[in-house]
Amino acid sequence: MVDVLRFGMVGGGLGSYIGQVHRKGATFDEQARLVAGSFSRDFQRTLQTGQRLGLDRERLYRDHNEMAEQEAAREDGIDYVIICSPNYAHYAAAKAFLERGIHVVCDKPLTVTVEEAEELAQLAQEKGLLFAVSYAYAQCPAVKQAQLMVQNGDIGEIQVVMAEYPMGWLAAPVEQEGEVPWRTDPKQSGISNCVGDIGTHIENTVAYITGLEIEELCARLDNFGGDNRPLDTNAHVLVKYKSGAVGNYWCSQVAIGYDNPLKVRIFGTKGTIEWCQEFPNHLRVAKLGQPPQMLAKGQEYFYPQANELARLGAGHPEGYYEAFANFYRAFNGALLKHKQGLELTSEDLDFPDVFAGLRGVKFIHRCVESSKRGSVWVKFD
Amino acid sequence: MVDVLRFGMVGGGLGSYIGQVHRKGATFDEQARLVAGSFSRDFQRTLQTGQRLGLDRERLYRDHNEMAEQEAAREDGIDYVIICSPNYAHYAAAKAFLERGIHVVCDKPLTVTVEEAEELAQLAQEKGLLFAVSYAYAQCPAVKQAQLMVQNGDIGEIQVVMAEYPMGWLAAPVEQEGEVPWRTDPKQSGISNCVGDIGTHIENTVAYITGLEIEELCARLDNFGGDNRPLDTNAHVLVKYKSGAVGNYWCSQVAIGYDNPLKVRIFGTKGTIEWCQEFPNHLRVAKLGQPPQMLAKGQEYFYPQANELARLGAGHPEGYYEAFANFYRAFNGALLKHKQGLELTSEDLDFPDVFAGLRGVKFIHRCVESSKRGSVWVKFD
Amino acid sequence: MVDVLRFGMVGGGLGSYIGQVHRKGATFDEQARLVAGSFSRDFQRTLQTGQRLGLDRERLYRDHNEMAEQEAAREDGIDYVIICSPNYAHYAAAKAFLERGIHVVCDKPLTVTVEEAEELAQLAQEKGLLFAVSYAYAQCPAVKQAQLMVQNGDIGEIQVVMAEYPMGWLAAPVEQEGEVPWRTDPKQSGISNCVGDIGTHIENTVAYITGLEIEELCARLDNFGGDNRPLDTNAHVLVKYKSGAVGNYWCSQVAIGYDNPLKVRIFGTKGTIEWCQEFPNHLRVAKLGQPPQMLAKGQEYFYPQANELARLGAGHPEGYYEAFANFYRAFNGALLKHKQGLELTSEDLDFPDVFAGLRGVKFIHRCVESSKRGSVWVKFD
Amino acid sequence: MVDVLRFGMVGGGLGSYIGQVHRKGATFDEQARLVAGSFSRDFQRTLQTGQRLGLDRERLYRDHNEMAEQEAAREDGIDYVIICSPNYAHYAAAKAFLERGIHVVCDKPLTVTVEEAEELAQLAQEKGLLFAVSYAYAQCPAVKQAQLMVQNGDIGEIQVVMAEYPMGWLAAPVEQEGEVPWRTDPKQSGISNCVGDIGTHIENTVAYITGLEIEELCARLDNFGGDNRPLDTNAHVLVKYKSGAVGNYWCSQVAIGYDNPLKVRIFGTKGTIEWCQEFPNHLRVAKLGQPPQMLAKGQEYFYPQANELARLGAGHPEGYYEAFANFYRAFNGALLKHKQGLELTSEDLDFPDVFAGLRGVKFIHRCVESSKRGSVWVKFD
Repeated sequence: MVDVLRFGMVGGGLGSYIGQVHRKGATFDEQARLVAGSFSRDFQRTLQTGQRLGLDRERLYRDHNEMAEQEAAREDGIDYVIICSPNYAHYAAAKAFLERGIHVVCDKPLTVTVEEAEELAQLAQEKGLLFAVSYAYAQCPAVKQAQLMVQNGDIGEIQVVMAEYPMGWLAAPVEQEGEVPWRTDPKQSGISNCVGDIGTHIENTVAYITGLEIEELCARLDNFGGDNRPLDTNAHVLVKYKSGAVGNYWCSQVAIGYDNPLKVRIFGTKGTIEWCQEFPNHLRVAKLGQPPQMLAKGQEYFYPQANELARLGAGHPEGYYEAFANFYRAFNGALLKHKQGLELTSEDLDFPDVFAGLRGVKFIHRCVESSKRGSVWVKFD
Repeated sequence: MVDVLRFGMVGGGLGSYIGQVHRKGATFDEQARLVAGSFSRDFQRTLQTGQRLGLDRERLYRDHNEMAEQEAAREDGIDYVIICSPNYAHYAAAKAFLERGIHVVCDKPLTVTVEEAEELAQLAQEKGLLFAVSYAYAQCPAVKQAQLMVQNGDIGEIQVVMAEYPMGWLAAPVEQEGEVPWRTDPKQSGISNCVGDIGTHIENTVAYITGLEIEELCARLDNFGGDNRPLDTNAHVLVKYKSGAVGNYWCSQVAIGYDNPLKVRIFGTKGTIEWCQEFPNHLRVAKLGQPPQMLAKGQEYFYPQANELARLGAGHPEGYYEAFANFYRAFNGALLKHKQGLELTSEDLDFPDVFAGLRGVKFIHRCVESSKRGSVWVKFD
Repeated sequence: MVDVLRFGMVGGGLGSYIGQVHRKGATFDEQARLVAGSFSRDFQRTLQTGQRLGLDRERLYRDHNEMAEQEAAREDGIDYVIICSPNYAHYAAAKAFLERGIHVVCDKPLTVTVEEAEELAQLAQEKGLLFAVSYAYAQCPAVKQAQLMVQNGDIGEIQVVMAEYPMGWLAAPVEQEGEVPWRTDPKQSGISNCVGDIGTHIENTVAYITGLEIEELCARLDNFGGDNRPLDTNAHVLVKYKSGAVGNYWCSQVAIGYDNPLKVRIFGTKGTIEWCQEFPNHLRVAKLGQPPQMLAKGQEYFYPQANELARLGAGHPEGYYEAFANFYRAFNGALLKHKQGLELTSEDLDFPDVFAGLRGVKFIHRCVESSKRGSVWVKFD
Repeated sequence: MVDVLRFGMVGGGLGSYIGQVHRKGATFDEQARLVAGSFSRDFQRTLQTGQRLGLDRERLYRDHNEMAEQEAAREDGIDYVIICSPNYAHYAAAKAFLERGIHVVCDKPLTVTVEEAEELAQLAQEKGLLFAVSYAYAQCPAVKQAQLMVQNGDIGEIQVVMAEYPMGWLAAPVEQEGEVPWRTDPKQSGISNCVGDIGTHIENTVAYITGLEIEELCARLDNFGGDNRPLDTNAHVLVKYKSGAVGNYWCSQVAIGYDNPLKVRIFGTKGTIEWCQEFPNHLRVAKLGQPPQMLAKGQEYFYPQANELARLGAGHPEGYYEAFANFYRAFNGALLKHKQGLELTSEDLDFPDVFAGLRGVKFIHRCVESSKRGSVWVKFD
């Protein structure tokens, strides 16, 4: 039987949407189990969550510092921590665990400032620790297929990227009814709501599929959907890539009629690839002079490396949990190998890491900066 | 912490497609864990599977009889068994466990003959044991929503049902290349391949949503797709329901270009509901005089009871694993309550049971009978 | 400049839906112009229609007999008549014109009885007159492409045909509000409403694409949608073709949420073709082992003969008028050539003729007969 | 019988794609007929075209000047001219006819420079002549419905507009094979190819539906798809409207897999409306808190004024010809009324006029200017 990793969680208590998704993902392939946590700033809640999840009372902690310290001291201490608290709290928690030699999985966006992200990246490197950032959408077989098609030249040289992530959940001024989602609160979200939450998913998914690097960008952010919202709920970003290709990203939380259809379209000199998160098992592909095709994960015409991410045959839909499961299968697999003292290949490390996280934070900051300065073009690096 | 049920498996060894789906489903909500198994007719394979899954060597068995006997004798014996061997083997295994007082989950179709199914139904009732049949497609939030809409009269009285389950995996004569899928082998499948495998899903899903009972049916089965195939690969079934409504079911394994899109359309006097398994998170609904709508699970306009089956918000896709997880959550929940000595309500028992399984077997037999007799109308009961 | 044909109309007065469609179709390519008419049983209405359309008063007639007689007597008499009165009136009108040597275009279904249709077919043949029946749906470039693909073996041997034509316009009991559409009145429609109006479109489109001949059929007709409707509004028809293939046709006028999506799916041993009338410019094609494709008329991968029916490039939609225009372009072209004394090839005659019309009437009668006798199988011929 | 208008054409000879579309559109409702033309710079071609279309030899002219002069002198001279020569030639022709008191329909874009467009606008106003610019896409019932919904506040205040027009026909470097489409030649197209041809359709359709006025814009144009193409084939345009709303327009001719799907999405505070030119008979509408709906032209839930543009019932598709027919029905109707000396209301003038044409030319120039200056923001007026 395979060894099983031990992990703890910071954030993600009962009632947290993303907390249970991380737990299911991390344990889906029985490579890891939850043994410790500081699930909430409210310790009572941490205790309740821990009890409900069957954890030992002594491994429930008041805060990330206590947890990092004590887990690092245990012989059966956690191998890694999953951080899924609100954005502002990521940095301090991640730092605490890294400093004590504990590997980290952190929710996106990685941190609130670029400097924090840079510091974490440096720290992880110095300590030789694995650090993943949970841009999990892209862990679908069809996204991998898209990446492989680009890498293999199936659509030629990329010229244009169109990507969007429209949602409608902030279309109504919910704040007036007393509901203030933490994402619209600068103290918890940082300098951006919409770009920080979902614009960064666009950036990551496009970068993962295409490998394109952003040279400069021009962004227009708006705080639509309510009176005096302090943060953006809609953003348009024009992008020039170093290769000469151009991109157009749109994210919105006031797009009535849309739930979560992150959609990426890649236009090359020989063909086009399109993927949508709400229908993640298919890929629309058009080659020059041929009719557009609808590819399905699991079919033999997929690249084998893409089908490895498919757990079920074509036509048996896989979704959001399975994307997280794939993300964690990659991370857990790499960590298990690392613990055995083996060298990790780039294939082992095929998950968004702390540098992807840093790039995401930079993207948020460049967008905000561009918009504040009148939507001028700003250099990415 | 909640009590956790113990289950064993008959069939579903390493390499089995459906075996891992059952395991993931049964354990998804941490209400049950696998402790025993007779995973294959080949004991070496059972041993390998058990070792890989971390089971005690002593709880790996040569056959279902040995397993039923010894597990029944243990104090920590299994609460229930999951049977996912080929069709022909269901009956003997189920009987063995029922006779020893062990609850059963069995894959579909329940048995090869109607008599066997009737016997199991009677036995389960006599023993007071829970018996579920894993028609799991229908455990999606959107299917529950469809059922509730019908029950609440949202589409009026049902007049017409159109349902289809086209697949293409047997379009090529794979047998000639030496591959003989067990489903095309009468010794393992029984009297039908296509109706038995997927036609029965249509029957179950329609019955679950509509509550309609079949009065008589007229079926045409064909063995397309290869020379001298002994069993059907395509079937058309006209149905008259007791209510006066009519139905039209089509299932096929030679429909090139189709993976698994089980699709059900219910036409009532006030509206229409449509659901497709490949895009299971949405429901197309049209009301008289209004534009068709696309409903999404997780949205507030769903019935609360349907949204309880949604584990994620609108736009975060859930798929096949989650359908199985819902099936097992219902079964595990009922069994946990039963073990506490509590009375089970019809709501607790909202999963396909042995009578649904029996009805499915009858459906298969009536279709084959009709077709053999020249596609004449035959009474269902 | 090309010669221009002269035509007259029986039926199709102001306010008639199909009348103006025939007129636009017949004149779309400036090969023919309207010069005479008996547009209504109500002569005042004929006069109004004629005046509005700028016809000579003397060429407006009280009935088809007067019109046939006088037009036949004129030197500049009509070359052909378009008959688009209600079904029951087709036969007598068509006969009157044929007997006087005037070519005929008749709306579908051709006649109310099989005998009438046979008589017209014989008469047209004896007289050597062109006789078209306006099954115009099938005159789209994408339908022609489908036909050519079948003929060229692109999808192998056909095994299964699925075709449907659901509409919702009779879902409400409109008769109770005093509106009695002529189609639901046996005196005007004949023995069938739904099969006669739209089932026959299915029969024709399938026959045109596939060339398959029906051996026998089994039909179930229902008069849903109102109390005591005298004619069918919903029909399921199982079909056995002479080739051994099977078909399943469904037509309905009580399918809420559907307008006119006649949909035909052809399943062969090598591939599948699908077409839908509401989105007529595209064709879904799946080949064995390949991803499904979406073909568009006007693109170079279409057969040239199919693209000849496209008047606009890919992406510029063509619809119902253009289908009728293609139907009439074929008919007018053949007639112009015939008038020049040239031999007509089968390519010239690529439009539904009186034999297609006869086959359609037979289909209606066989369906009604089967249903009345308890939905038994009846021979087609 | 109604009077019939007489029109002539400049450009649009045999072989011209758009020429025959204009002719069909102008005559579709029998309100006008073609009597004169200067169809080509090559007089032989004009003669051939004229002969083929049955025109009098004496009304076929060498150039627009000759035609304007002689037609103005005839008693039965043309009421209006349709100009559908390449872009660069519009101005001189339009001016020639306006100066002689002849009404004008001109293809888009109106002229090559803003000054020319302003001059034509002024001239048309001074002379009191009707001047339409054939942005015909927007003349569909569903586009009218969208406009009426916006005007009636059905989707609240507009916040975001997303619009795109991707095509793939210039993806391959066709110039290298000796084919140089006139659109890629600056001498014929003016300063822009892609924005000029299809970007301007976006601008017009959005303006027509929303009434929003552009305050400033920021554009990035690229000449993708071939070596050293002199003009743009891809453009991204960010737009700030005077109302505070933002827009994002994308047009491309190198988007492989796309034919003509001009798509406009309008996001308001209460709902969203979406329309696509390739499927022009439907409109996707989502209201806050409700499931998205698919509206169909012809249905009773459409505004009556929108359904007036539908010539056929729901489910009978209308396309590109019918859009042009609607455009010309409006223009011809206004001109007939004008000729009777009646006052024209704004409803009579519900077609894109010379000011819409001028706005389109400005849009092209602002985009090119912004892009040339480094994609900076430029004021629209």
